Formats: sequence, C-alpha cells, structure tokens
Amino acid sequence: MSAAHAPVVALSGGVGGAKLAHGLARTAPAGGLVVVANTGDDFEHLGLRICPDIDTLVYTLSDTADTTRGWGRADETWHFLEALERLGGPDWFRLGDRDLAMHVLRTERLRSGRLLSAVTRELATALGIDTPIVPMSDDPVRTILDTDEGLLDFQDYFVHRQCRPRVRAIEYRGARSARPSPPLAALLAGDVPCAAVLCPSNPHLSIDPILAVPDVRAWLERSTVRVVAVSPIVGGEALKGPAAKLLRELAGSSSALAIAEHYAGLLDILVIDEQDAHLAPRIEALGISVQVDDTVMRSIPDRDRLARRVLRCLA
Amino acid sequence: MSAAHAPVVALSGGVGGAKLAHGLARTAPAGGLVVVANTGDDFEHLGLRICPDIDTLVYTLSDTADTTRGWGRADETWHFLEALERLGGPDWFRLGDRDLAMHVLRTERLRSGRLLSAVTRELATALGIDTPIVPMSDDPVRTILDTDEGLLDFQDYFVHRQCRPRVRAIEYRGARSARPSPPLAALLAGDVPCAAVLCPSNPHLSIDPILAVPDVRAWLERSTVRVVAVSPIVGGEALKGPAAKLLRELAGSSSALAIAEHYAGLLDILVIDEQDAHLAPRIEALGISVQVDDTVMRSIPDRDRLARRVLRCLA
Repeated sequence: MSAAHAPVVALSGGVGGAKLAHGLARTAPAGGLVVVANTGDDFEHLGLRICPDIDTLVYTLSDTADTTRGWGRADETWHFLEALERLGGPDWFRLGDRDLAMHVLRTERLRSGRLLSAVTRELATALGIDTPIVPMSDDPVRTILDTDEGLLDFQDYFVHRQCRPRVRAIEYRGARSARPSPPLAALLAGDVPCAAVLCPSNPHLSIDPILAVPDVRAWLERSTVRVVAVSPIVGGEALKGPAAKLLRELAGSSSALAIAEHYAGLLDILVIDEQDAHLAPRIEALGISVQVDDTVMRSIPDRDRLARRVLRCLA
Repeated sequence: MSAAHAPVVALSGGVGGAKLAHGLARTAPAGGLVVVANTGDDFEHLGLRICPDIDTLVYTLSDTADTTRGWGRADETWHFLEALERLGGPDWFRLGDRDLAMHVLRTERLRSGRLLSAVTRELATALGIDTPIVPMSDDPVRTILDTDEGLLDFQDYFVHRQCRPRVRAIEYRGARSARPSPPLAALLAGDVPCAAVLCPSNPHLSIDPILAVPDVRAWLERSTVRVVAVSPIVGGEALKGPAAKLLRELAGSSSALAIAEHYAGLLDILVIDEQDAHLAPRIEALGISVQVDDTVMRSIPDRDRLARRVLRCLA
C-alpha cells in the first residue's frame, strides 16, 4: 500500500471543517476516507438530541446544506418554529422544518437503545453519503466554557450570548471516561500507516474535544500517522465563529502561528493561507512543515482543490 | 342558579364532536363550558405523544383547523415529512410542520413530569382558547379493536387498515384503573346541577372511552345531570369515519335509533337530524325525548345554531 492510498482520517467540527471534509470525500480514493465528528456541542432541546457538527457534516457531504445562511438545510422553511412560538415554546434555537426530521428520527432511534455512531451511519447513508461520518464517541461529552460570566454550556455561550463572554478555560466534560465510538476505536486499534487531517475547524471548540477522547491524541502522535492541519485562521481572523477570539483569550494571540503552537507535537504539516506566508519560518522553527495555499473555500471547486492539495502533501 | 346557566360539560372526540364543541364554546355563557376529550386514540409516534382528539379540539376551538382536509392545521406544510421520508423514516402518519410543534412541545413537557391535563390547558391557552379542554384522564387508556384480523391498536385499524377489518369487540385498555384527570374529577365531585352534551362523535371510539373512565357514567346517570346527545348518524350513515360501520358490526344496524339504544339509560334527550324524524316515536319509546334539527354543520354559523339549540333544550 503506497502512502498516497493510506486511509485518511479527517477530524472535523462544523462549517469550515465540513467544507474541507466535503472536498476530501469528493477527491479521496473511494473507501479511503473517514470523517470523525466533534460531539462536544451536542445538546438536548425540546427533548430532541441535536448534534450540530454531525448535522453540518451530513448536510454538507450530501449537498443539502444551506450555503448562504451558513448552517442548516437548504430550501428550509420555518413553519414549525412559527407554530412553536405561538404555542409559547422556546424559539432561541432555530429549528427548520426539514432539519427537524434529522433530530426527531435520531432521537427516536437513540431512545430505542441504538448507538449514535450507528444511527449517524444510517441517516448519512439515507442521504447518499458513502464516506463514514463517525461521532468521536457514543458517550456524552459536553464542552463547558469557564467565562467571566461563569460556567456556560456551549449553546448558552454560542447562541444565547453570541460568544461575547471572555473565556478563561474550556472543559470537555465526560471526555476522560468517554470511549471512542466503535468505528473510531477500530481505526485507533489498526496499525496500518494512516494520514490524519485536522480540518479548518475551531481548535478549542471542535478539534480539541475529539483529541480529549482517550487514545485519539496518542494515535495521532504515532510515527505511522502523518498529521496535517489546515489553519482555520487566515490573516489573524477566523472566517466564521469565535476561533480567533478564543485564541486571543486563551493563547494571547490569534494567527496561523498560534494554530501551529496550539497543535505543536501533533502536526507534521500545517497548511496556511497565502496571506500568512510570512509566518512560515516561525512555524517551521516549531518542527512543522508548512504548505502555503489559498485556503478560503468559497465554492465546491475550492473545496476540491484544497482537498487535493491536502491529500497530495500527505502522500 | 337557573338551569340555563348550569355548567355544561361536553364529551367529545375529534372532527364532528369538535365542531359542536366549537359552537358551544362560542355560544355558551362565559365560564359555563368544559370540554372533556377522548384520549383513547392517543399514541406514540417517532417518540412523540400524539393526542388526535385533543389536537382536533384545540385546532377547531382556536380556528386554526384545516376545514377542507378535515384534520390537522390550516396553512399546513409538509417539509418535515418530506425530509423524514428521505431519511428513511416512517411516513404513514402525516405530521405537518405546524402540527409538529404541538406534539414536540407537549412531549417535552410530559417528559419533564407534567400532567397531560395541565399541558393541554397551557397549549390551548397559548392559542387563545378560554374553554377548558380536559383530557378524560392523565393516565394512559388505549382503544384496542378485536377484529377478524386480530387485536389492533386504534391507529393500526384507523390509518393503516383504513377501518376495513370487521370489529367484534372493543376494549378501552387501562380505563378501569385510569383516574379522571383533576379538572374532570372536580366536576364529578361537584353536586351542582349540570348539563352534559355527548357530542356527535363516534360512540364506540370517542364517547365510550370517556364513559369507561371510573365515575363518569355514574355521574351522567345522576338525576341532577341532564344529558343530551347529538346523533352522529344521519340517514343511517356517519358524516365522517367508521361510526356507522361499527354500529352495524357491533349493534346490528346503524341509525339514530341505534344511537339512542346505545346510550339508553344515560340520555334525557337525543337530537336527531330532520332526515331521521320518522325514528322519533321509536326513540321516545325508550324514554328519551327527541329534538329534530338540521344537525349537519357545514359552516361556523351552523355550529353556533346547533349549539344554541342544544343549550336551549338543556335549559
């Protein structure tokens, strides 16, 4: 087996990560890709189990994501939410009519005793996705932010307070006792050379929860696993979400270099944007190879192009 | 207190009963009406608690029912169901996007330990309904049909098999140990003269389950409770649903007379349609007064007119 055909394992959160995962799914050799999804943002709402990153991955990889709004389903309508508001129900989390089918069906199957990893596979397959989308764990892990307004659940921080509180520390509650989901455990137990991609997702909120699941970090540190990350920070800012703000609050600065420092010890290669090319020497000084690229994915061809470049540098 | 202002308690199932209940709500003196709803058709679907008769009553009394289709919400859309089908979920029960809000919110509140009677009151109030809509019981009662195809749950009989199997007997499973819901129990415990209306709902599937709840029948048999029924059978047929078929299968014939015989011992007055006027002498021979009227409710003024006539004959 040549290195170019080593299985590729992509670790991903939501939007930015999902775009690259989509490109990888479209360009990787068939059967050669597994996407491991963060579940630290999962929560219960209206009795329904919501898995924001799994959903974004499923919608993105099945080409049913809304690319304008940037989250949820394309062709979405909001009649459920309108009726819910009229009934006095909570309207802070925007549940679309089509999106709701995912949450209702998943919740029912989980309640019947099925595992999230199995249910995710079924739902993704129903939408025509061949690439396995694997929850990091079937056990609950919850990202809790220690902020200047106290401990906040992820959704409380992200939706209710729109990431305004200053974050001092982050806890991935339950991660230490969480078991990798069976498909992830099978990967971690394998001893074939692998390639891992840390997708351009929020390092603190999307990638670190996955790394906090037992054995994942140790697996990435193996010499047989080649690790590349695509920086979610471009020109000092995140394209979407609070990644830059969190880096400033937790690491003192926000840049592709801060990403390199954050993942130091884990990375073989960091893909940075052309705007950040000047940071390459300082990143290489950390023992990380640098690849400079246009990392902003505006279109599906952009996703494919970046994915091909990432796969090539893993070869 | 004059008899004309005695509290009116309407026992109702879905569509036909809900139309009269709506008329009663619009014409009864304020605070003078309580609607007791059948819950024998309730079931779990996709992990959601569906209460078909409560929902029809709530939608009808809040003027949000679809009057063309005859069930569910007006201005309904079906995007949830489309997405559900695409995900491989069950599509036999038509859940509309707006309707879903009712089921999701109710289910969440029930799961948090609230009583169906309290949750129903909240949801109805949110839609502007002043009239209490009271589930017959907060405990589960399930209508089971013993048919030539075996024992069938109500939804299995009604939706899946479209009422085709021949019914030999009906069981209201759980009724004997079900407690009347607190608002109904308060009515049953009262000793003021009352008037009760058996709405033009299916006697076997909608009214009998309510009568099977302990103390309800005994309460209706009290001399201080005046009972009127509106026949759901007009010209030997039901306007909607399997009422006539069930009467033929279980009582040998379907007519306003069969309704009178079904409710014998309970009724003071039976309101029958003009088409059935010739049956009046045989009904009166059972010791039941007859009022002949146009009982078909095509419009909201029809509901009001029939309700006024019913209230007047109770005075």
